[in-house]
Amino acid sequence: MTASFLKHPFMGQSALSECDDQAVVTAMLEVELALTRAQEDAGAFPVGVADQLREHLEGADFDLAGIARETLNGGNAAIPFVKQGRALLPQELRCYWHQGATSQDLVDSALMRLMVPRLRAVDGLLQRCGSAALTLMERHAATPMVGRTLMQQALPITFGVKVAHWAVGLEQCRRRLMAVELPVQFGGAVGVHSGWDSTGLGLMDAMARQLGLSASVMPWHTDRYPIHALGTALDAVAGAAEKVALDVALLTQTEIGEVAEPAAPGMGESSSMPHKRNPVRSALIRSAARQVHGHAGTLMNAAAQPLERGLGEWHAEWAPLMESALLVEGALEQLVPLLEGLEVHPEAMRRNLAVTGGGIMAEPVARLLTPALGAEAARAVSAEAAETARRESRPYAEVLAAHPRVAGQVPAEELHTACDPAAYTGSSSAQIERARQWLTAPAR
Amino acid sequence: MTASFLKHPFMGQSALSECDDQAVVTAMLEVELALTRAQEDAGAFPVGVADQLREHLEGADFDLAGIARETLNGGNAAIPFVKQGRALLPQELRCYWHQGATSQDLVDSALMRLMVPRLRAVDGLLQRCGSAALTLMERHAATPMVGRTLMQQALPITFGVKVAHWAVGLEQCRRRLMAVELPVQFGGAVGVHSGWDSTGLGLMDAMARQLGLSASVMPWHTDRYPIHALGTALDAVAGAAEKVALDVALLTQTEIGEVAEPAAPGMGESSSMPHKRNPVRSALIRSAARQVHGHAGTLMNAAAQPLERGLGEWHAEWAPLMESALLVEGALEQLVPLLEGLEVHPEAMRRNLAVTGGGIMAEPVARLLTPALGAEAARAVSAEAAETARRESRPYAEVLAAHPRVAGQVPAEELHTACDPAAYTGSSSAQIERARQWLTAPAR
Amino acid sequence: MTASFLKHPFMGQSALSECDDQAVVTAMLEVELALTRAQEDAGAFPVGVADQLREHLEGADFDLAGIARETLNGGNAAIPFVKQGRALLPQELRCYWHQGATSQDLVDSALMRLMVPRLRAVDGLLQRCGSAALTLMERHAATPMVGRTLMQQALPITFGVKVAHWAVGLEQCRRRLMAVELPVQFGGAVGVHSGWDSTGLGLMDAMARQLGLSASVMPWHTDRYPIHALGTALDAVAGAAEKVALDVALLTQTEIGEVAEPAAPGMGESSSMPHKRNPVRSALIRSAARQVHGHAGTLMNAAAQPLERGLGEWHAEWAPLMESALLVEGALEQLVPLLEGLEVHPEAMRRNLAVTGGGIMAEPVARLLTPALGAEAARAVSAEAAETARRESRPYAEVLAAHPRVAGQVPAEELHTACDPAAYTGSSSAQIERARQWLTAPAR
Amino acid sequence: MTASFLKHPFMGQSALSECDDQAVVTAMLEVELALTRAQEDAGAFPVGVADQLREHLEGADFDLAGIARETLNGGNAAIPFVKQGRALLPQELRCYWHQGATSQDLVDSALMRLMVPRLRAVDGLLQRCGSAALTLMERHAATPMVGRTLMQQALPITFGVKVAHWAVGLEQCRRRLMAVELPVQFGGAVGVHSGWDSTGLGLMDAMARQLGLSASVMPWHTDRYPIHALGTALDAVAGAAEKVALDVALLTQTEIGEVAEPAAPGMGESSSMPHKRNPVRSALIRSAARQVHGHAGTLMNAAAQPLERGLGEWHAEWAPLMESALLVEGALEQLVPLLEGLEVHPEAMRRNLAVTGGGIMAEPVARLLTPALGAEAARAVSAEAAETARRESRPYAEVLAAHPRVAGQVPAEELHTACDPAAYTGSSSAQIERARQWLTAPAR
Repeated sequence: MTASFLKHPFMGQSALSECDDQAVVTAMLEVELALTRAQEDAGAFPVGVADQLREHLEGADFDLAGIARETLNGGNAAIPFVKQGRALLPQELRCYWHQGATSQDLVDSALMRLMVPRLRAVDGLLQRCGSAALTLMERHAATPMVGRTLMQQALPITFGVKVAHWAVGLEQCRRRLMAVELPVQFGGAVGVHSGWDSTGLGLMDAMARQLGLSASVMPWHTDRYPIHALGTALDAVAGAAEKVALDVALLTQTEIGEVAEPAAPGMGESSSMPHKRNPVRSALIRSAARQVHGHAGTLMNAAAQPLERGLGEWHAEWAPLMESALLVEGALEQLVPLLEGLEVHPEAMRRNLAVTGGGIMAEPVARLLTPALGAEAARAVSAEAAETARRESRPYAEVLAAHPRVAGQVPAEELHTACDPAAYTGSSSAQIERARQWLTAPAR
Repeated sequence: MTASFLKHPFMGQSALSECDDQAVVTAMLEVELALTRAQEDAGAFPVGVADQLREHLEGADFDLAGIARETLNGGNAAIPFVKQGRALLPQELRCYWHQGATSQDLVDSALMRLMVPRLRAVDGLLQRCGSAALTLMERHAATPMVGRTLMQQALPITFGVKVAHWAVGLEQCRRRLMAVELPVQFGGAVGVHSGWDSTGLGLMDAMARQLGLSASVMPWHTDRYPIHALGTALDAVAGAAEKVALDVALLTQTEIGEVAEPAAPGMGESSSMPHKRNPVRSALIRSAARQVHGHAGTLMNAAAQPLERGLGEWHAEWAPLMESALLVEGALEQLVPLLEGLEVHPEAMRRNLAVTGGGIMAEPVARLLTPALGAEAARAVSAEAAETARRESRPYAEVLAAHPRVAGQVPAEELHTACDPAAYTGSSSAQIERARQWLTAPAR
Repeated sequence: MTASFLKHPFMGQSALSECDDQAVVTAMLEVELALTRAQEDAGAFPVGVADQLREHLEGADFDLAGIARETLNGGNAAIPFVKQGRALLPQELRCYWHQGATSQDLVDSALMRLMVPRLRAVDGLLQRCGSAALTLMERHAATPMVGRTLMQQALPITFGVKVAHWAVGLEQCRRRLMAVELPVQFGGAVGVHSGWDSTGLGLMDAMARQLGLSASVMPWHTDRYPIHALGTALDAVAGAAEKVALDVALLTQTEIGEVAEPAAPGMGESSSMPHKRNPVRSALIRSAARQVHGHAGTLMNAAAQPLERGLGEWHAEWAPLMESALLVEGALEQLVPLLEGLEVHPEAMRRNLAVTGGGIMAEPVARLLTPALGAEAARAVSAEAAETARRESRPYAEVLAAHPRVAGQVPAEELHTACDPAAYTGSSSAQIERARQWLTAPAR
Repeated sequence: MTASFLKHPFMGQSALSECDDQAVVTAMLEVELALTRAQEDAGAFPVGVADQLREHLEGADFDLAGIARETLNGGNAAIPFVKQGRALLPQELRCYWHQGATSQDLVDSALMRLMVPRLRAVDGLLQRCGSAALTLMERHAATPMVGRTLMQQALPITFGVKVAHWAVGLEQCRRRLMAVELPVQFGGAVGVHSGWDSTGLGLMDAMARQLGLSASVMPWHTDRYPIHALGTALDAVAGAAEKVALDVALLTQTEIGEVAEPAAPGMGESSSMPHKRNPVRSALIRSAARQVHGHAGTLMNAAAQPLERGLGEWHAEWAPLMESALLVEGALEQLVPLLEGLEVHPEAMRRNLAVTGGGIMAEPVARLLTPALGAEAARAVSAEAAETARRESRPYAEVLAAHPRVAGQVPAEELHTACDPAAYTGSSSAQIERARQWLTAPAR
C-alpha cells in the first residue's frame, strides 16, 4: 500500500476509516439489496426474497484481499464482489442477485453513497467554520488593520471585515456543495435496463429513495455531469479554505505577526528554533487544496466518455473524486481549530498601521488639506510629511501640524482624525452587518 | 499579435469581435459611468454630473495602442484607461471620475459585463442544440443500434435514447451555467469603499442594477468564487459537448458508419482521398473542450488570492476566463449544425447489430432457453449458436432453431423475437419519454 | 485508509509494498545513517559512532502508528521519526543523531531513495515493452493495414510501422526518464548547513554517494527542479503508454477487430455477454495515465515555493510524485503483457482495407491513370469506380479494368498492382529498419 | 479578436509580431519550399523547379483573411494555404507543390520553425538573468539576512546564497530547454510517405537540415513526445521564474522591505497612495507562469492521439504550445530588469535579523553554552534571554552576558560572536563559490 504518511495528514482523519475497502463493499452490498428490494416491490421477484438476501449477506465476510486481487482482471471491484456475493447465497436465491445491474451501477452508486456522509461532514465542518468566523468577525468588527494589495500596505480595513470576506467565501461554497445532487446509478449493461424495459426507471427511482440518493433523469454511465458538479464544488471549498490559509500564513509572518495559529501542544514547534511557531495548519490546508485542484483537473479531462461506458475515463474518476472529498474534509479539520483558536494581535495591527509613518493615511489627509492647499499641494504635503514621519519615527499628525503650509490652516483635531486609521475603514462595519445577515439568513 | 489561425477556429466567430480591446474599453467606460450615476443618485455628486461625463466620454476615442503599451507598467488596462478618461474630461469634471474605484473594480466588472452577452449566446446555442436533439431523439426513438461499453459491442439500445442522453447532458450544464451569477465588482482600493463608508455597498448595488449584473454580498477582490463558479460551469458545457463529439467521431468511423457529420461544401473533404469525409466539427469541438479544461485548471489554481488583492493570481484569470467562454461558444457553433444536420444511417446500425452473428442477443436468448435447458446449458447453447451464426454468416434464430438441444423445445416465433435486437431495447423509449418531459418542462 | 480498490488496480502491484510506511521509515533511517557516516568520515564525529547508530537503529521497531498520528502536528513524518529515533538511542549517542539536518532533508532524500527502485522497475518494464514491440514490429513488417486519420480510413500502412511508432514513442520517454537525476537533499534548517559551514556541501556529496543518489549543485529545498523534471518525465511515459492503449482500444472495436488484448483466464470476460472481451488492460492504462496528468498538474503548480521552505507547496508534492511513479509502473505492468501477447488479425486488416471498395487506393490509381486520362478524369474515374466496387462488392481492380475509359488503356497487371494496398505502404519498411537501428543502438 | 489587453501584457513584446498569422504563413511556405528543394535534390523533380517555386511564392500575397475563414472548414490553416499557394503558381508548376505532404506536416513543421527564434530569445533572456544574478550574488555574498521556512524567521543565510539558488534554478531549466529538439514533421497522409517509399525519410532529413530543425527518428504525427518535451521544459522555466517573483514579492512586503523592484517611471506607482510601489513585474511573472501551467496541462492531456492523426487532440496543442513560449518570454522580459535593477536593502535585512531579539540565534548560542551549562539548561537560557531581549529591545549578547547562569562562564567575545547572524551563515559562501563555478562552466 502506498505510504499513508505522505497522504493521510492532509485528509479527514475520521473519514479515512469510513472510506476503506470494507466501506466500499458495504456500500456495494447496500446497492444490491436496494435493487432486490425494488424488484420485489415491483412484483418482479417473489415476496420475501429481498429480506432473505439481506439475511444471508448482511455482515457476511467478503474476502477483501480476493476482491483486490481480482479487480485487476476486470478493471473494477464490482465484478469479484458480485461473484463472491453469489457464492455466499444458496442456489435458489442466486437468480435474484445482481439482476439487471452492471458493474458501473454498483461502483457509481457505492461511491455516491460513500459521499453522503462525507458531504454531511463537510457541511458540519463548514458550519463550524462559519460560527467561528462569525465570532471572530463580531469581536474584531472595530479592530483596525492595514489592508494590503499586491502584498503592499494600502489603506486601513478592519480585521472583522477580512473575516467577513473569509466567511462569505466559505459559505458560498457550502451552499453550492449542498446543492449538488448525489444520484443513484442504475441502468444495466448499456444503460437502458435491458430486459427490464420500462420497469427500469422505476427501479432506479426506488433505489434512490432507499439509499438516500437522488434520482437522476436517467442513468448517467457516460454523462458524467454529477461527477463534474461534485468534483468542482469540492474544489471550490478547497479554494475558499486555501484563501484563509494563505491570509493566515501571510499575517503570521514573523515581521507582521498580526495573527498566529492557535498554540497546541507539540504543534508547529521547532525544537532547535524556540522562537519559531510554524503555521502547520495553514500548510496542511494549502497542501490539501492544491491536490484537490489536480484531482479536479483529472475529473474535468475525463468528463467526455465514449458511447455507453468509459474505457479508462470512468476508472480514472474513482480515486480523484474520493480523495477530493477526503482532502477537503482534511483541510476543514484544520480550518475549524484554526478559526476557533486564531490568536489575533490588535497591537501588532496597530504597529503595522504605523510602519509607513503616515503613508497609508496620505490619501485621507490629502483630501482634508485640499480645500486649504489645492489638490496638488495637498497631495505633495501629505506625502512629504508621511516620509518625514517615517524617517523620524514621529506621529504623522504631529509632523503635519508642524508643517509650515499646514500649521494654522487646519484644526489639529481634524488633522488627528484624518491620521487615524481606525476612522478610515470605509464600509467595513456595513459589510460586517451585511455579512452577518446573509450568513445567518434562514435560507441557510 | 499571436497567430489567430491557431486559436480562432475554435472560438465563437461572432463573439471574437465583441471581445476585442475596444469592447473592453467600452465595458470599463460603462462601469465608470454607472459608478458616477450611482454617486450622483446617492447625492454625493451634483445633479447632472453623470450625464455630463457620459456626454464627454461616450464614443470618445480612447487610444487603444496607448493603453496596451502602458498596461505593462501597472499590470492592468484600467490604469491607463482611467488616465486617458481623465484627460478627456474638462478640468471641472475630473473630480467626479473614478472616485472611490480601483483598477480591479473596473477590470472585474468589465469582464463580467462582457460575459453577459456571451452567456446569452451560449444559452441560445445550447437551446438550439436541445431542439435539434429533441428532433433527432423523436425521429429515432425506435431506431435500434448496438450499445457499446469499453468500445465493444454489448447489447442493443436505440439511437433515440443515445441522443436523449446527449440532450440531458447538455441541458444539465445549461441550467447550471444559467444559474451562475455575474456580479459587479466595486470595493475601492482595499475592498471597503475607503472614504465612502456605508454608502459604498449601496453604490455597488446600484451599479449592479444599471449594468445588468448581480450584486454580490460584498466586494470579491480576493474571494474568487464568482470566477470559479463561472469557469467550472463553462467547463461542464465543454465536457458535455465533447461527449457528443466523441460519440460522433466513434460512430462515424469508416467501419462503423452509423452517423456522419452533415456534408457541407468544402468541409472535411480530402482532395487526394475522395472516400474520406473528416469529422471536422467533432475535431474542432474536442480541441476547444480540451483547451477549456486547461483554462479551468488555471482558474482553480488561482482561486486563493492573498489579502486584499492578488499578486498575479488575479491577472492570471483574465485570458483563461474570457477564452473559456469563447471556446465554449466556438464548440457550440459547431455542435448546433452537427446536431441539426447529423446524417443517421439506420441500415448501418442494423448491419452492425448483426456483426457478431447473434452474439449480442445471447443474453436474452439464454434467458428464453433457461426454463427448458437449465441456466448453464442455456448459456452454453446460446453462446455456441452465436459463434456458429457469426462463422457461417447465418441468422442467429435459424441456427438456434436447428440446434439439437433447442429444436422442438422452444417455438420458432419466440426464438425469432428473442433474437431481434429491436425488441430488446429495454427502457429506451421510457427514457426518451422522460427526457422529453424533463427537457421541455416549463422550469426550463 | 482510503479504499485500495479504487486506486491500487492502476498501480504497480509489487511496488505497492515497497512504498509503504515502513519503506518510508527505512529510507529516512538510511538517510540519517548516511549523514552520520559522512560526519564521522569528515572527522566531525568520533570514529565508530556511525556504526553504533546503525547497530542500534537498523531493524529497530519504529512505531508507525505513532508517526502517522504525530505527523499531523508538525506536518511531516520526519519530525516524529526523528523523535523516536532519538529515544531509541542511548543517551551518549543522541548528540550524533540528526545533527545539522532538517525534516525536509529527510523527506526529500527518502522520497528520492524510494524512487531509485521505482525508476529501475519502470526502466525494466519499458525495456520489456521495447523487446515485445521489436518482435511484433518484425513479425508484421509486411502486414498491410489501413492507416486512419481523424479516425477515418485514409491510406495503407503496415502494422509493423505502427508498432515502430509505439516503440519509438516509448523509448524516447525511457531515455528521458533515465536521464533524470535523483538528488540527495541535505541543507539543514535554512539550506545553508547552519553550524556546519563549508563542511556542509561535502557531507551532501558524501551522502549522495552512499545512498546511490546524485548530488545536486546545492540543496534544493525551494528549487523544485528535480521534482518537476521527474514528474514530467513520468508523465511522458504515461502519455506514451496511453497512446498504445488508445490505439489498441480503437483497433479492437468489434467492427474493426484488427487486434485483441491477449486472452487471459477471467480477464475482460463478461459473464452475461459471451461475445464480449473487454480491453481491460487498455482501460487500466488509460485510467492510470489520466491520473498521472492530474498529478503532474499539481506538481507544476507547486514548483514555485516561498523563500527557504514551502508552506504547503512542498507537502503537496509527496503523494502526487509517489503515485505518479506507482501509476506509471502500473500502466506498464499492463502494457508488457499487452504487447507480449497482443493478438493480431491480419485477415481483419485485409478485410478492412477492402471496406471502402477501393476508396483508399483511389489516390495511387488516379496517379496511374493520369498519363492516359489526364489528371482530372483520372481522379473522377478512380473515385467513381471505387464507389461502384463498394456498392457492388466487387474487386476494385476488376471494376476499373471494365471501365470504358480505362479498358485497353492500362495493362490489367498494372491496375492490379495499383489497387493492392500491400504495394502502397510507402516508407513503412524503411521506417521499421530505421526504428530497429535506433532502438537497438548501443547508446541505448 | 480576443482582447489583447487581457493577454499581451504577459507575453514577450517583440515576440508577438513574430508569431502572427503572416509568420505562420511564411513558415508554412518555407516548409513547402524546403520539401520541393529536397525532392529536386533527390532527383524526383526536374532541376530548377524548387527555385521557380520560390520565385513565384516568396513574398507573394497570401490572403490571410481568406485562410482564417476557410480554416473552419478543414480544421487547420494548411488546407487553405495550400490551395492559395497552388493558385498562385502557373499550371505547369502546380504538380510540384505540396507533393507527398499532408496538412499536419505543414502545421507541425511551421510551429517548430516558429519556435526556433523563440527558444533563442528565451535562451538569451535566461543568460541575461544569469549574468544579473551572478552580479547580485557576488555583491551580496556576505550580506546576511534571515532565512525563512514556512514563511517564519528561522536562521541566517546571506542574500548572495539566495540569489545563487535562484540562478541555479533558472540555469537548470535553461539547459533542459536548450536540449529540447525541434524536429521537422514530414510523413504524408498517414505518416509513411505514401507514394514516396524509402525516399520519404531522406526527404524528411533534408528538410530538417534546410529548415534548421532536427530530424526525428520518424514522423511524429501521433507520437507527441516533442510537444510534451517542449511544453514541459517551458513550464520548468516558468516555474523557476515564478519562484524568483514569489521571493521578491515576499521580501518586498512593506513590513519586510528587504528588496524592491527597480523603480521605473510610471511603473507600479499608485496615484492615490504615494507610499506604495507595487511589485508589478512580480505580478506579471506570476500571472504568466500560472497560465503556462494550465497550458502544460492541456498538452499533457493531449499526448495520446489516436491512430495516424489526432481528432482534436492535435488541434488542441497549437495555442497552448505557442502561448507557453510567448508567456515564458514575457515572464523573462520582466525578470531581466527585475534582476538587473533589483534594489537590495541590507539595512532592512539587518533590522529584520534583530526582530526576534536574539531568537534566531538561540540555536548557536545554546550550542556555545552547552559545555558550561549542559544541553538542557543551555537551551532554556538561550531561549529565555532571547525573549527578554525582544521584550526589552536590548541586544541579545548583552542580555546573555548579564544572565546569572552565564555571567563569568563564557567570554563576552564568544557570546558576541555567537549572537552575530553574519557569523552564522553556514555554507553560504561555499555554495556561492560552487554556484559560480557551475554557472560559468564552459559546458554552459
